[in-house]
Amino acid sequence: MKDVKNQLWDYVLLVREKSPLVENITNYVVMNNTANALLAIGASPIMAHCKDEIEELVKISSSVVVNMGTLDAAWIESMILAGETANKNSKRWVLDPVGVGASKLRNNTASQLLALNPSVVRGNASEILSAAKYDIVSKGVDSLSPSEAAIEAAVILQGQTNGVVCISGADDYLVDTSRLAKLSNGNPLMTKVTGLGCTATAITGAFIAVSEDTLLATAAAVSVLNIAAEVAITKSSGPGSLQMNLLDALYNLSKDDFLSLLKIEIQTL
Amino acid sequence: MKDVKNQLWDYVLLVREKSPLVENITNYVVMNNTANALLAIGASPIMAHCKDEIEELVKISSSVVVNMGTLDAAWIESMILAGETANKNSKRWVLDPVGVGASKLRNNTASQLLALNPSVVRGNASEILSAAKYDIVSKGVDSLSPSEAAIEAAVILQGQTNGVVCISGADDYLVDTSRLAKLSNGNPLMTKVTGLGCTATAITGAFIAVSEDTLLATAAAVSVLNIAAEVAITKSSGPGSLQMNLLDALYNLSKDDFLSLLKIEIQTL
Amino acid sequence: MKDVKNQLWDYVLLVREKSPLVENITNYVVMNNTANALLAIGASPIMAHCKDEIEELVKISSSVVVNMGTLDAAWIESMILAGETANKNSKRWVLDPVGVGASKLRNNTASQLLALNPSVVRGNASEILSAAKYDIVSKGVDSLSPSEAAIEAAVILQGQTNGVVCISGADDYLVDTSRLAKLSNGNPLMTKVTGLGCTATAITGAFIAVSEDTLLATAAAVSVLNIAAEVAITKSSGPGSLQMNLLDALYNLSKDDFLSLLKIEIQTL
Repeated sequence: MKDVKNQLWDYVLLVREKSPLVENITNYVVMNNTANALLAIGASPIMAHCKDEIEELVKISSSVVVNMGTLDAAWIESMILAGETANKNSKRWVLDPVGVGASKLRNNTASQLLALNPSVVRGNASEILSAAKYDIVSKGVDSLSPSEAAIEAAVILQGQTNGVVCISGADDYLVDTSRLAKLSNGNPLMTKVTGLGCTATAITGAFIAVSEDTLLATAAAVSVLNIAAEVAITKSSGPGSLQMNLLDALYNLSKDDFLSLLKIEIQTL
Repeated sequence: MKDVKNQLWDYVLLVREKSPLVENITNYVVMNNTANALLAIGASPIMAHCKDEIEELVKISSSVVVNMGTLDAAWIESMILAGETANKNSKRWVLDPVGVGASKLRNNTASQLLALNPSVVRGNASEILSAAKYDIVSKGVDSLSPSEAAIEAAVILQGQTNGVVCISGADDYLVDTSRLAKLSNGNPLMTKVTGLGCTATAITGAFIAVSEDTLLATAAAVSVLNIAAEVAITKSSGPGSLQMNLLDALYNLSKDDFLSLLKIEIQTL
Repeated sequence: MKDVKNQLWDYVLLVREKSPLVENITNYVVMNNTANALLAIGASPIMAHCKDEIEELVKISSSVVVNMGTLDAAWIESMILAGETANKNSKRWVLDPVGVGASKLRNNTASQLLALNPSVVRGNASEILSAAKYDIVSKGVDSLSPSEAAIEAAVILQGQTNGVVCISGADDYLVDTSRLAKLSNGNPLMTKVTGLGCTATAITGAFIAVSEDTLLATAAAVSVLNIAAEVAITKSSGPGSLQMNLLDALYNLSKDDFLSLLKIEIQTL
């Protein structure tokens, strides 16, 4: 794993060096935080959603982030156009299907966006199960652990999008055509800060702009966030200070901390 | 009051234990902060505003928050639908009539939402006076103190909505059909952090989900925020650090601090 | 310069004393931060964007902030109406043409808003060059430094709007009909916090409400932010803590710090 770990660190350096321009159509709740997280890792965020300018902005960007958090009709049109434009211009893009499963609107929107084959789909287990339309009952999930079911769903979804699928949780799992990666960094207090999943998605946008290996780029993004949270938590007294210290830790993340804290396992499928 | 104080603390524990799902249609300015405050007290926020999914989301939620801060036509429709759906499904909901009195749009919107009888209306004195259409001149307010006038307006408004009306200020006043509660926690620096009134409203959404006694639930919500601010202020150097430390203090609030700091008086009307 | 420095400090005191009401149509990313910055300096922010209430809100406000960060059609209409209403009612207003040059939508919107002669236009060098439609090639920019080209563009733009034009950067430059001011406070880490340019614009909204001398009012606003950042940086470990400490520093800014740190040069054009 030493080579893989160094590979991921190289991506961290590449983001800092190349400062990729990342176009974000994301939700109102997290815009400030995800823009700040992108700046902290060295990327350059654009936060813009109007259909009239999406094509131009996607074309000048290195990659695109689409996050379904605070949906409405106009934004959905822009999200679809962003995915289509990214595809036409060979830009990679990441989809965060926030809340899919909670409403027909979210299910339909996720279906439309997934049909555009996002380079990466990142969500929690519930979202990945919903996005994959994984039928827990007929699959006999009683005999599977929750994470086994989610991984099965991720593999199905991966087969549909042909990209990377990332399940966030206490451990994070990533699948592509041939590999399953397990990442084991982070801290439970992260679930008490709104939108850190969205931040993982946004950072993934920056990393897939600097590497052809989408699974490893996503692994780097998720690990950077989780390791920064581990560093930040030592200085934090609760979710408020964690949110703030996390940005400092992302900005100051050192090679030593990254390599010594990183927990990654990769197996061939 | 010892029994009442313990009653309020029980609600704090109930929110932590039950983690009520609270659907929020709120303003852009405070979304991040109110979502974080709900997480910090142990609740589960949903932040979504699209009319196409409001009915589904309200039905799966324990309670609903409607905040008029950054109004426009589409959001107003969603707010009305959220109130109607909450009523049909016997979910309690809280209205924050932000800025009512400042424009016809806000006055009309507040009227439409108040006609749906929100379980709680929370605002500052000016907003409660406007919401109640309290005619300061004809009422001869010269002979009343500002808080007396606001309480009179709150009683009128309470008679219309049949719910709880909460006036925020240096002291907070709550009225229902039979009781007037006075809460005396908090700190003046809270007025220098944007949207702490909105945060009080959001937290109220969580507390009315765990108690049938809406007045006491609202009192618990307002007191939790104000006491957390008193704890946070001791570690803060200004409004920036107060905003952050407040989330930590909400997350860490102890029974000892709550019971020893809580200042509440209740009288029968 | 001693008189000018004291003049600027007087404006700081005037904002604290008069607490001007500042109506903001700004972008989603920075709303929380700019509202908090306005509160921290002693002003009273209104954050509202709906066309149906813009005229009423502008009329009761002391000044107006228009920020193009997260554009769409409905917001553009409100921005134009806000500028028109400000003009009709002799209120000063400041335009932040965020991202002009990046899309036709932004170019067209900036043109429409600039045609309404904002009292102040504030942007980075790239935005001022784009807003002025400064043709770098035909102007032979090879012979100019980047800041010389931006100042030339600012002078052109000033001639069109007849207001103040402010270029933000490592040094900030302000021009009006007869003066060029150079401000040299701030810290490079400010570029790693999203929206501090937007915060400069928002604060400018408060200062132009308390002084007839728009250039000096803008200089005070920009300097207050940059000096507060210099104070905040000494307590910060990265962009997360800088964002928080900046609000504390704005709130606590002292005359001694302001006068001793302020770097301003003014020349007659």
